[in-house]
Amino acid sequence: MAAAYKLTYFNSTALGEAIRFILSYGKIEFEDNRLAYDDNWPSVKPTLPLPYGQLPILEHDGKIAYQSLAICRYAAKQAKLVGSNDWEDLEIDAAADTINDLRMKIGQYHYEKDPKVKEQKKSPLFEETLPFYIEKFEKQIEKNNGYFALGKLTWADLYFVSLLKYLNYMLGKELTDGAPGLRGINEKVCALPQIKAYLDKRPQTRC
Amino acid sequence: MAAAYKLTYFNSTALGEAIRFILSYGKIEFEDNRLAYDDNWPSVKPTLPLPYGQLPILEHDGKIAYQSLAICRYAAKQAKLVGSNDWEDLEIDAAADTINDLRMKIGQYHYEKDPKVKEQKKSPLFEETLPFYIEKFEKQIEKNNGYFALGKLTWADLYFVSLLKYLNYMLGKELTDGAPGLRGINEKVCALPQIKAYLDKRPQTRC
Repeated sequence: MAAAYKLTYFNSTALGEAIRFILSYGKIEFEDNRLAYDDNWPSVKPTLPLPYGQLPILEHDGKIAYQSLAICRYAAKQAKLVGSNDWEDLEIDAAADTINDLRMKIGQYHYEKDPKVKEQKKSPLFEETLPFYIEKFEKQIEKNNGYFALGKLTWADLYFVSLLKYLNYMLGKELTDGAPGLRGINEKVCALPQIKAYLDKRPQTRC
Repeated sequence: MAAAYKLTYFNSTALGEAIRFILSYGKIEFEDNRLAYDDNWPSVKPTLPLPYGQLPILEHDGKIAYQSLAICRYAAKQAKLVGSNDWEDLEIDAAADTINDLRMKIGQYHYEKDPKVKEQKKSPLFEETLPFYIEKFEKQIEKNNGYFALGKLTWADLYFVSLLKYLNYMLGKELTDGAPGLRGINEKVCALPQIKAYLDKRPQTRC
């Protein structure tokens, strides 16, 4: 029987990996449909049911979902990685959105095409933005018993760890260097049996 | 007695207005704490309890929440503007995130400081991005009985309408021109008695 869920994304971590992590954590079977981002992509793209032209999408029961964070939140409810009331879910959502803000800021540097502008963006990112977020994250993790929210494992932790390879790739350095709280979350999440099993079998990709 | 919720944002619509709309719709009393974005702001900012240096924040029961979309989602649960199962909430979340994507793309043009780069960004935004999103939105609204999701009013509709003044300001034109579906949502939301009452009393601001 086909899996109840089909995730379509590129053969990379980036915006698809958190969904893979969360579904794996919840032992929810899914077809991990990985597309090559290569010369064929422009001809493959129009054949896909993409509501707003973007990946990832999640197919389930004849329906199609889009927007990676919205899909993560849905998957996290199925995997029991959410809070126990509305305010707790707000705390998790805010943490995930803040991690995503940092991801976008790093992306604005990494994907800048003009080498001169990219050079101008380097110092503000590495000397200001990154230390600002890391200091705030470390304080938040200290307050939350070694996690991003609620003093326990939530999908915000899986979201961060799943993005780390991609963030490190874009930065050209280890984001968690000198950040024991973030390193601790990475170690704890990677040691979860379901995540470890997924990591052992996932295709090796550059980012 | 003080209101159970205190929303702190600038005296403008932008990222705070959706929360004001949603709380107003739900008849949830809140203190609408509006700050001037003026010469005093740099000295006011450090006195505020801002977890990541950003507004809006929502204070409730001695706790502080941040991230506008996460706060909207929380408020929408209190105001009964959400779906009736996880997949329905995913559909609303995806619509809101897509509206937010467009808001960010418009902001990347509007806030560009280099006049030459801004000019370069103009045509892709007005000739490609905007028509792309509007066409997709119109189809989605047609499929959803005149709303963004679920064929009925949800917080995605209030989110869009609350942002419209700000988006029009950044674009320098009416985003909904030639988009009957979006205009219809705007009319329906503004005609809701609680929203109308809020609009009648809100301070007049430039954006």
